[in-house]
Order: sequence, then structure tokens, then C-alpha cells
Amino acid sequence: MTLILALDFGGTKLAAALVNIGSRKWLRYERRLSPANANASTDLEIMRSLIYSLLQDAKPAAIGVSFGGPVDASTGTVRLSHHVAGWENIPLKGLLEEEFGVSVGVDNDANVAALGEHRFGAGQGYDSLFYITVSTGVGGGWILNGQPWRGAGGMAGEIGHIVVDPAGPVCLCGKRGCVERLASGPYMAQNVREILENEPPSRQVRQGGEVLRGLVGGDLTLLTGQLVSEAAAAGDDLAKEVLHKAAWALGVGIGNVANLMNPQRFVLGGGVTKAGEDFWRVVRQVARETALPEVDFEIVPAVLGDDAPLWGGVAIALTQILNL
Amino acid sequence: MTLILALDFGGTKLAAALVNIGSRKWLRYERRLSPANANASTDLEIMRSLIYSLLQDAKPAAIGVSFGGPVDASTGTVRLSHHVAGWENIPLKGLLEEEFGVSVGVDNDANVAALGEHRFGAGQGYDSLFYITVSTGVGGGWILNGQPWRGAGGMAGEIGHIVVDPAGPVCLCGKRGCVERLASGPYMAQNVREILENEPPSRQVRQGGEVLRGLVGGDLTLLTGQLVSEAAAAGDDLAKEVLHKAAWALGVGIGNVANLMNPQRFVLGGGVTKAGEDFWRVVRQVARETALPEVDFEIVPAVLGDDAPLWGGVAIALTQILNL
Repeated sequence: MTLILALDFGGTKLAAALVNIGSRKWLRYERRLSPANANASTDLEIMRSLIYSLLQDAKPAAIGVSFGGPVDASTGTVRLSHHVAGWENIPLKGLLEEEFGVSVGVDNDANVAALGEHRFGAGQGYDSLFYITVSTGVGGGWILNGQPWRGAGGMAGEIGHIVVDPAGPVCLCGKRGCVERLASGPYMAQNVREILENEPPSRQVRQGGEVLRGLVGGDLTLLTGQLVSEAAAAGDDLAKEVLHKAAWALGVGIGNVANLMNPQRFVLGGGVTKAGEDFWRVVRQVARETALPEVDFEIVPAVLGDDAPLWGGVAIALTQILNL
Repeated sequence: MTLILALDFGGTKLAAALVNIGSRKWLRYERRLSPANANASTDLEIMRSLIYSLLQDAKPAAIGVSFGGPVDASTGTVRLSHHVAGWENIPLKGLLEEEFGVSVGVDNDANVAALGEHRFGAGQGYDSLFYITVSTGVGGGWILNGQPWRGAGGMAGEIGHIVVDPAGPVCLCGKRGCVERLASGPYMAQNVREILENEPPSRQVRQGGEVLRGLVGGDLTLLTGQLVSEAAAAGDDLAKEVLHKAAWALGVGIGNVANLMNPQRFVLGGGVTKAGEDFWRVVRQVARETALPEVDFEIVPAVLGDDAPLWGGVAIALTQILNL
């Protein structure tokens, strides 16, 4: 019995899981929310306690780690976290190897999730795929020739900041009309909110918004991407319009990527992709229209859900063992 | 003395060159225009005569071929030519291997030129690069991990049909505001022509165009991309505007590609890239603004010029020898 330990440092949660090599079911699994005032030290302390609780007296053959932020995968050093303070230049691989005495591999969450879907999920048997997560942000990870492609500086996969509408709204990154600016959950909520604030019910000219207002009891600050999806599913015209624009942006992005890289599959995960059949129909149609007719591809849902980074961690740990 | 034979089937010209392995100078070189009514048979016949003239009594160790159109590189079969009739499903590798009795490799011109610049030109020493040709069309070829990336169906590299301005003019491919629609030579000429036709000198409201009209003696059908570049260099405001838009489109495309794939270098060749410093300044500035700040890259001119496909052919032939 050879054990693999997989760790997931998310922006708001920490998870760890133990699996026997060859098994597709977790032997043990632990998950904890990151506290509101978390920093790198507290996150590491919580993860350490999860690990000892999982391992008990066992020792894994290797550890694979997903980190929610930029990582130098060649050295296993975290560059920083956009969500949690204190992660600047933390040698996470080195710290874990020293403490647990086994080989450790670390990469950022989009690359790791891509690897997870490739080895254990919707990308099994496909040599080239692009995994896209559409959630609080929009990011991606590449598998080319069956291996992760991380880019020269580890920055590949940033489909969220491809410009699809140069006349669109301004993104936090400073550009207009990025995929993320139109398709991420928080930005969808913001887009709805801005329209509703400019059109109070008394002088409303546009159809829709009633369902949305109802869902948040009139308090527009409570709007989320998920509520936009729910309102769209319930037939709210404004929610449908904003969700349609999100699907359009994602479809243009995917079609452009298909023309540029011609991967076999696009695997889409993250909360926004649960928005229903209409969303998927628009994504697929716009991507097909944007790509050249000769460029073939499929767009399929991710199947590992929130566990994709952990299963990718297993794949990374297996690579570590093979390289020993 | 071991010889390599490189062949270039362009849309309008045919070229062949012979080189000693290890040398950077052609031993012998032949070039011929493709006749106006060319088809696959006449092109093959002309190429055959070039080859026999080059080889005399010598026999090359391998042959590398660049073809101006879609190729299945794994089998060396030409799918078709967009310029010359009769190339549908021609087993070019097989035909040449049978006739000359040596190993042959065939790929499309953008991939081959990328390989040429990688091995012998502006990409030497770089593990990842994207070669872009901006000429009659806009196309590209990838080197990742030091190897060509052709895509699952051999269609990777189509930066020309990335949409950068969804509100822009309609491209032959059916979409609006593709990079090629704004940045290729013929489309630049068309853009200038349409503006001038809508604003005859008698009721001209826009600055510029005088130099352009002068260059073609008033006959706007004679406009070309190169004349637009020349008029811009001579200070014509309209030509500068159209060239600026071309550089902007290319810059957005490059910035998007940098975010998505994070290659070390972009190598730009083709006639339009000879438009001068202003053009390059805008391309570099817009690409830098479009890419995320953490994404590093350089944009440099190709150095092999029209010989890039032939030098890439040499690289392909060398790979054939290594794989024997």
C-alpha cells in the first residue's frame, strides 16, 4: 500500500486528502475554511494540522500541492497570493520536504486542476486540452503533448485577461472587455447591479430585474454571480442578458484559443459553468462561430468539481515518484 | 560532406536550396515564379527541374519541405492549397521519398519558418517562441519546449483569425475585426481605398490621402499594403491612421497570446513588418499594455527573410536524419 498526499491551498479554504496509488477514492479527506484574517503562517499551521490528522502514523510516498496563486513550479516556490498576505517567495516545496522527508511538487491551482482533469477527469485520453475555471476569476491551465505547459515565466493560461471587447467595461487589470471582466461571477453581479442602480423601478425602461431584486430583498449589494444565474433560469430578462454576455465573452475567448493552439478539448469548471443549458449553448455556438471551420474541438464540463486541484496534486505527486 | 535539400512551395513561387550540414550558407540555390495558371502538377514539375539542377550527381541525406497551405505533418500529406489548384490530398512526402530515395519531412510554411527562425535565426537559444508572418495574410507557427506545436489537427498558429475588434470590418472568414482583416497588406490597402472612395478630393473632410493618391496616379485599384507603408513614412495622415490600426490589431493579438501562452519571444516577419519604426513602436506598446504586467516577452524582427521556410526545411531534414 503506497500512499499519496494531496494538498490544496485555496484562497479561502484549505483541503488535504490521502489516497492509495491506483485508487480513485480518497482514503481520508479534510477541509477547513481559511480564517478571515489569515496569513501564510496561519494557513500553513492549519494545513499542518490537517496533514497530521490525515496521516496519523502513515508516511506518504510523495506530496503534490495546488496553490491558489502564482508559483515557480520548477523550484516549488510560491510567488505570492492575491487573497492571503505573507506568501511572497515562500519555498513551499522546501518547507514540506524538510518537515515530511518526502518528495514534493507544487504548482498553481489552474495548472494543477488541468492536470487533475487530464489524468482523472474529463480530459482522460486527450493529449491536448485547455482547462478553464470560471468562478471568482477566470483562469486556465494547459496540457500539451500530455504534459503541463506553464509558459516561459509560469504565466501561461491567463484566458481571463484576453481582450474580447475593446469597447467593453474596464477590468481591474486596467484593460477593457477582458473575458474575466464579462464572465466572472462577481463581475456579472456588478454588471447587473450597475444597470439596476441606473434604472430604479420607478423609471425602469428595460425588461427584467424583478426576479433579481426579489432574490436579494431589494438590497443590490447582496447580488452574486450565482443569483444572476438563478434569476436567468427563472426567466429574468436582465439576468439572461448579463449571463448571455458572459457566455459570449467566454465563447469568443475559446474560439480565439482554438484558432491559436488547436487543442482537442476545452474542459470548463467553476461555479459560473453551472448556470445551465442556455449558458452552455451560447458558449459552444459563439466558440464555433469564432473558430475557423477547419479547427475542431469539443467543450465539455469538468467532472472533478472542487476536488480537481487535489486530484491534480495526486498526479503531481506521481510525477515526483517517477522522477526519483 | 553531407548534403541537405530544402524545398519551398510558396503560393506564387518555388524555391530549392542545397546546403552542407553545419554550414549557414547555401551551396546552391534556385528560385522560380509559379506560372499564372499553375496547378499541383506544373508546380511539382518545376520543382523537380530545380532539384535536378541543384543536385547534379549529388544525393542529399534528407529533404525538408515547406508548403504554403495546410499539411498533415505526421504523414507529409498536403491537404490543399488556397492559391494553386489540384493540391488536395497529395502525398508529397511519399512522392519525393519514392523519387529521391531519402527521408523527407513536410510541414506548412508558418510552422517551417518558425522552425527556421528557431534554429538559424532570431529564435536561436529560445525554448518557446511564436513566429508571426504579416504579409498577404497573417499566420503563425509555434515552438514550445524547443519543438514545433502544430495543434491536434495541425491548425495551431492562426493568430490572423483571432478577433480583436468585434465591431470592426468583416473579414473573408466571416468574422469581424480579425487581426488579418486589419493588419494584412491587401486589407490595409482596401481600408485606405474605401475611405478615399467615400471622400473624393472635392469634398474631403479628413486629413491625408494626398500622398497615397499621388503614389498611384489617382488609380485607387493600384493601392497595396507596401504603398500604404510608404505613404505613412512620407507623412500621409490617412496612411498613418490605417497603418496604426494594423499595428494596434497586431499588438492586441500579441498581448493576448502572451497572456495565454507566455512564450519568451515573438518573432515577426513578412512585408508589413518592414513598415518602419512607428509601426514597431505601436505594436510593442499595445502588446505591452494588453499583456498582464507579470508576463514578460520580447518582440523582435525575423532575420531570415524570404529564406525562413528554406532554413526551416533544413531543420526538418535534420530531424529526419536524427530519427532514422
